[in-house]
Amino acid sequence: MKRVLVMNGPNLNLLGTREPDVYGAATLQDIEAAMASLAEELGVTLRFVQSNHEGVLIETLHEARGTCDAVVFNPGAFTHYSYALRDAVVASGLPVVEVHLSNIHAREEFRRTSVIAPVCVGQISGFGADSYLMGLRAAAACAANER
Amino acid sequence: MKRVLVMNGPNLNLLGTREPDVYGAATLQDIEAAMASLAEELGVTLRFVQSNHEGVLIETLHEARGTCDAVVFNPGAFTHYSYALRDAVVASGLPVVEVHLSNIHAREEFRRTSVIAPVCVGQISGFGADSYLMGLRAAAACAANER
Amino acid sequence: MKRVLVMNGPNLNLLGTREPDVYGAATLQDIEAAMASLAEELGVTLRFVQSNHEGVLIETLHEARGTCDAVVFNPGAFTHYSYALRDAVVASGLPVVEVHLSNIHAREEFRRTSVIAPVCVGQISGFGADSYLMGLRAAAACAANER
Amino acid sequence: MKRVLVMNGPNLNLLGTREPDVYGAATLQDIEAAMASLAEELGVTLRFVQSNHEGVLIETLHEARGTCDAVVFNPGAFTHYSYALRDAVVASGLPVVEVHLSNIHAREEFRRTSVIAPVCVGQISGFGADSYLMGLRAAAACAANER
Amino acid sequence: MKRVLVMNGPNLNLLGTREPDVYGAATLQDIEAAMASLAEELGVTLRFVQSNHEGVLIETLHEARGTCDAVVFNPGAFTHYSYALRDAVVASGLPVVEVHLSNIHAREEFRRTSVIAPVCVGQISGFGADSYLMGLRAAAACAANER
Amino acid sequence: MKRVLVMNGPNLNLLGTREPDVYGAATLQDIEAAMASLAEELGVTLRFVQSNHEGVLIETLHEARGTCDAVVFNPGAFTHYSYALRDAVVASGLPVVEVHLSNIHAREEFRRTSVIAPVCVGQISGFGADSYLMGLRAAAACAANER
Amino acid sequence: MKRVLVMNGPNLNLLGTREPDVYGAATLQDIEAAMASLAEELGVTLRFVQSNHEGVLIETLHEARGTCDAVVFNPGAFTHYSYALRDAVVASGLPVVEVHLSNIHAREEFRRTSVIAPVCVGQISGFGADSYLMGLRAAAACAANER
Amino acid sequence: MKRVLVMNGPNLNLLGTREPDVYGAATLQDIEAAMASLAEELGVTLRFVQSNHEGVLIETLHEARGTCDAVVFNPGAFTHYSYALRDAVVASGLPVVEVHLSNIHAREEFRRTSVIAPVCVGQISGFGADSYLMGLRAAAACAANER
Amino acid sequence: MKRVLVMNGPNLNLLGTREPDVYGAATLQDIEAAMASLAEELGVTLRFVQSNHEGVLIETLHEARGTCDAVVFNPGAFTHYSYALRDAVVASGLPVVEVHLSNIHAREEFRRTSVIAPVCVGQISGFGADSYLMGLRAAAACAANER
Amino acid sequence: MKRVLVMNGPNLNLLGTREPDVYGAATLQDIEAAMASLAEELGVTLRFVQSNHEGVLIETLHEARGTCDAVVFNPGAFTHYSYALRDAVVASGLPVVEVHLSNIHAREEFRRTSVIAPVCVGQISGFGADSYLMGLRAAAACAANER
Amino acid sequence: MKRVLVMNGPNLNLLGTREPDVYGAATLQDIEAAMASLAEELGVTLRFVQSNHEGVLIETLHEARGTCDAVVFNPGAFTHYSYALRDAVVASGLPVVEVHLSNIHAREEFRRTSVIAPVCVGQISGFGADSYLMGLRAAAACAANER
Amino acid sequence: MKRVLVMNGPNLNLLGTREPDVYGAATLQDIEAAMASLAEELGVTLRFVQSNHEGVLIETLHEARGTCDAVVFNPGAFTHYSYALRDAVVASGLPVVEVHLSNIHAREEFRRTSVIAPVCVGQISGFGADSYLMGLRAAAACAANER
Repeated sequence: MKRVLVMNGPNLNLLGTREPDVYGAATLQDIEAAMASLAEELGVTLRFVQSNHEGVLIETLHEARGTCDAVVFNPGAFTHYSYALRDAVVASGLPVVEVHLSNIHAREEFRRTSVIAPVCVGQISGFGADSYLMGLRAAAACAANER
Repeated sequence: MKRVLVMNGPNLNLLGTREPDVYGAATLQDIEAAMASLAEELGVTLRFVQSNHEGVLIETLHEARGTCDAVVFNPGAFTHYSYALRDAVVASGLPVVEVHLSNIHAREEFRRTSVIAPVCVGQISGFGADSYLMGLRAAAACAANER
Repeated sequence: MKRVLVMNGPNLNLLGTREPDVYGAATLQDIEAAMASLAEELGVTLRFVQSNHEGVLIETLHEARGTCDAVVFNPGAFTHYSYALRDAVVASGLPVVEVHLSNIHAREEFRRTSVIAPVCVGQISGFGADSYLMGLRAAAACAANER
Repeated sequence: MKRVLVMNGPNLNLLGTREPDVYGAATLQDIEAAMASLAEELGVTLRFVQSNHEGVLIETLHEARGTCDAVVFNPGAFTHYSYALRDAVVASGLPVVEVHLSNIHAREEFRRTSVIAPVCVGQISGFGADSYLMGLRAAAACAANER
Repeated sequence: MKRVLVMNGPNLNLLGTREPDVYGAATLQDIEAAMASLAEELGVTLRFVQSNHEGVLIETLHEARGTCDAVVFNPGAFTHYSYALRDAVVASGLPVVEVHLSNIHAREEFRRTSVIAPVCVGQISGFGADSYLMGLRAAAACAANER
Repeated sequence: MKRVLVMNGPNLNLLGTREPDVYGAATLQDIEAAMASLAEELGVTLRFVQSNHEGVLIETLHEARGTCDAVVFNPGAFTHYSYALRDAVVASGLPVVEVHLSNIHAREEFRRTSVIAPVCVGQISGFGADSYLMGLRAAAACAANER
Repeated sequence: MKRVLVMNGPNLNLLGTREPDVYGAATLQDIEAAMASLAEELGVTLRFVQSNHEGVLIETLHEARGTCDAVVFNPGAFTHYSYALRDAVVASGLPVVEVHLSNIHAREEFRRTSVIAPVCVGQISGFGADSYLMGLRAAAACAANER
Repeated sequence: MKRVLVMNGPNLNLLGTREPDVYGAATLQDIEAAMASLAEELGVTLRFVQSNHEGVLIETLHEARGTCDAVVFNPGAFTHYSYALRDAVVASGLPVVEVHLSNIHAREEFRRTSVIAPVCVGQISGFGADSYLMGLRAAAACAANER
Repeated sequence: MKRVLVMNGPNLNLLGTREPDVYGAATLQDIEAAMASLAEELGVTLRFVQSNHEGVLIETLHEARGTCDAVVFNPGAFTHYSYALRDAVVASGLPVVEVHLSNIHAREEFRRTSVIAPVCVGQISGFGADSYLMGLRAAAACAANER
Repeated sequence: MKRVLVMNGPNLNLLGTREPDVYGAATLQDIEAAMASLAEELGVTLRFVQSNHEGVLIETLHEARGTCDAVVFNPGAFTHYSYALRDAVVASGLPVVEVHLSNIHAREEFRRTSVIAPVCVGQISGFGADSYLMGLRAAAACAANER
Repeated sequence: MKRVLVMNGPNLNLLGTREPDVYGAATLQDIEAAMASLAEELGVTLRFVQSNHEGVLIETLHEARGTCDAVVFNPGAFTHYSYALRDAVVASGLPVVEVHLSNIHAREEFRRTSVIAPVCVGQISGFGADSYLMGLRAAAACAANER
Repeated sequence: MKRVLVMNGPNLNLLGTREPDVYGAATLQDIEAAMASLAEELGVTLRFVQSNHEGVLIETLHEARGTCDAVVFNPGAFTHYSYALRDAVVASGLPVVEVHLSNIHAREEFRRTSVIAPVCVGQISGFGADSYLMGLRAAAACAANER
């Protein structure tokens, strides 16, 4: 059975309470529950990690080598400057799907550039909690193809 | 029953034969067939349009006002400069989901900027034919919400 | 009697219904009617063309050589990237007056640059339907001077 | 009866003698006479101010609050850098129409940017003395609408 | 007893009436009164100058050499381009504290750069009338240190 | 009684010993003592946090929601690139005052841009330890207004 | 016998009458006649297409797959922005030679960048009608090498 | 006898006392005396104007039309942004020699660009008071050539 | 006996397994062993630290003050954006030698800029594990000179 | 009989051995032989110069004044920065045809700009040794026209 | 007796024949003769060097150390890119005066930047042969001050 | 026995006397002597070349093909613009180690970019004469690996 790591970056622990007009009313727990449900349907297992620490996210990616088959990753604001996470994505050797709740291409200029996307399989942005569900579908498909 | 317009821009009629290492081996007909199948599952009807003419794409969006509920749109290379299509997206008053077969953030510099994404609901890029299927799910959800 | 071509670019056929807070409630037909009335007063005849196709606009300028004496032109979003239209303006050999309904200098960054204005007689922007009427006065004056 | 302030910035007192190939042979007095004539026709009164001093122009705008209903303003070279005048335009609370004799979009690079236009109603450039007359029509219309 | 010059640039004479949502409802007189009160507490004397004329502000700084011990300066829009004022600040030989009512770092792009701040002691921005009071405290401290 | 969080970013634990010509001879303890004294005068309570870890600063802001009323924040070098902290400032829902010991506008180019200031109430820079005291006054005033 | 497509973009139908000081006095018919003569000498057949419509040019390239062996292409002003044509050149799988009548490197800044040249065999610019004849020689050589 | 206007911009009235390490110990009076002496030798008469007001400098150039034959001009910091003075230089119709005490090319980045030099005869910078004397020689030569 | 801190940043714990074509097959342990051997030869002692946490690296530099004499530092991807580490290098007061396994000047654009190098003694890049050995020689020499 | 100078810049003496995948297998001698053969056909005489010294190339152009009628010039890497050669091209008063073996528009960013092309008749790039033969045809035609 | 080196860069040997409308009709010999005459008056001796070879100019500056007291230098087009000459100017330890015949600030964009001026005493540009005479006066004064 | 070319660019012949605070007191002869001593230890032979002529450096690299096994190269100021040397490095087919005495990343902006480093094995900068010794170790290792 394929294993998918679902990793969330800084400030995403506050989902639902933080700027709900931008990020929606769903909490991270709500999203994880919806993902768990879809995972069952897709026949994959999930591991959830959220951290506000760049180093923890890097090390989670390191540990995912050999223990996971694909990653759904919302890097939060690290999207725009964490070249260390970019290198960790490559180092993981795993297919990584970048997801965003809001449409980052429709917001402040700095949010339009992702330093991580160029080393991911692809990017999904703008569909709220659905971005995660689509990301999970994509990650599951990648994991299956890896075999 | 919600109606979704699936619109493809220039050169996408050659899918499957054009740079298959970049765009995959599926033809546009293959993709449309897969979408039709998913549409049935989702309970939406589809209208397919492909054109290499910017003006035709603009007018297709105009006509979609009132006859469609959401749009899945791969603008091809128009993504990077057609402000006229951007205006047409806004003018349509419809939720539009931008999709790309390849990960545009991992290619030439000029492909990383979409002048259309800022007026779309969101963007999905990098998952081959699956980008369209995810786009259809997203569009169907938007259409439902519109009601 | 001097002849003035009034040419409108992409999406302007939707005037009145498209983003009325930006572009006003007058339809293109309303504007053409007002122009026709002013044309009578100024003693000039008008020819109206609207197209969403860059190629049609180019060819309309080509045909205006010898059949028209001046042009009032709202290039819509082509304003910002159609160097082909710029060349067509020069090729027409006619005095062209660029007009815009909204104040393009007060909107998104990309709208502040016109690639066409440098080869026009001048530019009028921000006065809604009145931009066209002023443009007609200017074009009529140019046409008269050409004689 | 609506009152329109007609304000000219630096070096415009030399009109007619200064670079006539660029700015035309009409003097500022000629232009003011033509405007006075049109004002009568439009049923508005005019106040003329020309100054080479940024501070005087700022204070003229301040004084126009409550004593004028609209402004026709050729900021001359201040167009390109006087953020203080930009703020004064906003502070005046009046509709301001920016006018230019020459087509600033067809000249040196630095002349193509107006720091004042974004806070004006609109901009008219390239029609010589007619730019002022059109500007007066526009200002008169704005003044009427303000009521 | 230390003397502090409080200098205000263009359009600040309209405080309270000009864009109150941005600049607050306090008039310049209100601010000066509050400063006078604080000055008494701090044991410094104040001199107030407001001008919309760059030249007057320059000369006020010149005259402050030897007659004042520190300066609180809100350059208004001159902040963003008046290198002449920058040179005058240096020429004055006095410690100058730059203050702004609004948070200039949260507004239009052009407001984020101060050409004067690099030659000031420091900059305070965003606290409305309190920016001046803090600026006065800072200037008074500088003046004391100068001794 | 209002509660103010005083938060310091990387390297500020070395204050007094690190580049004293740039940052002054006062230690962080000296500054905290002076702030405590002023806090008493202002009738507010203080909480002090210093961390070299971006993640810790983010989580400190998260915890401040509901437990503090305002924040005085010197982000150190994170000022120039930590969009994650920027998002945390917004997520906290609290008024945050950005302070800097040195005049960041008079140093290396990269120090002149704060990615955090646009979401703060305001910024105070250049007054050494006094920047913190002024920041505390401002934060206390904000906290009072929040009620 | 090798077949060469000779394709001309917008405004080139006006050759000979349009800005003859820039583009020369030869008409497109003159150039085609000279090319036909050289083609005979080189033992290749020619197909001529001129269009002002980007979409038509794209589709002409699509059709050239399998029916032509090489292309001589003057994209006119599309040279500078039509990424759709660039993609069509790649999609055609044919060797394409970009030609220009005028020396585009000696004209306005925007004309110095070709978005199409990077996917062509090479570029010839500045030799008037001879650019086409040289382009034909180069295309014929490419076609021969393809075998 | 030829007449030369010697015009100095903002802050130059403080010469000798202002940043003597940058601008030298000579006062403006010292420089004017040296120039007067050289003028006698060269057989030209001089008119001296210094102003901190852009408007006064503009009007001094206006008045120089017909009353002077050439100009030696140190625009001070206006060098870097006063397009209004640039226009006044052109409007004067006189040969203008731009001079600077310090080597502006060896100082801050912003000082390396002169918006006025492109419309002057030439520029002399870096030789302290001697810049003025050389400028006077050049201006006198220009004035003679004008005849 | 001089003490040298050898500090490695994010992802370098994976050396040997991560992108071996870019970073070589040697593990971090291999490199540390080779360094230990050279250290013995050079008569210095080594302390090894690797961390994926920016904060830990900062604090390791803080602790090195007084306990080490020089530093060999491979900041990994922090090289390109961690101004906090840059400040920590300065705060340490120690000579720091920046090393890189790959030639950062021959890779992606973003890798060519080091925000840390300007405050280091020097930079060595491109020699694989040998970069560290050369760095150790350089650090040992610096340490010796410090005495 | 017209005389054509064929001039090659730095590193072109190594043709055939240097990066044959980029520059082809033909040696400079091979190319010169092919050109000599074509020259005979065209009825022109050739002079061949290759130098790795910018100064020698400059002086060869100086000497070509009066002794040659046109130039075929491959400036090698000088293409991208030698303004001295650009000036020498102008100083020669001769028609110069710039040629390149590889398609410089399809390589590294820096190779896409030629500082010499703006003063040449035209540019031919991308056709290997054929670039020289086409360049010779163009130069011969120019030489003929000069008469 | 002070010795002044007069050094001219590439293409200046052609003065008088090369673009006389830009550079004037005087030959380099004419200028040297005029300088010799002024040198006598000023009591300095001259050494003239012109070279089209960057290396020769560099070595001439090296040799000037100890054998000359000041330099008048027209670097020709090397002005805009020869950092090697810039370093040689510094290495010479001599005061160097940069001169230009034409007003480089009024020509092509690339001519407005001198990479050499920042290490010179000053720059004189735009006065034709007189630029050299003024440069000689300045160099002689520098040489005298060096003593 | 492996042979290493040690090549130095412009102005490096003056080492020891030129800006000793930047480049150190060691002469080029001192450095060469130290290198010779290390070469003996490493078992390689050295060839020393210094030239101020770009062309000579290019040709020295050409000649090194087949006669040397590796190169230690300090290009001096050519580092920043000589694309011709960059091409020569590639053409030599040899491993080249770029070395700099000073830390080029800590100096003027223009010195931070090396156009040569991208085609070298690596770069060593900032260690004075030791940069050369380290460079020799690296070059010797490369030469050994080439076998």
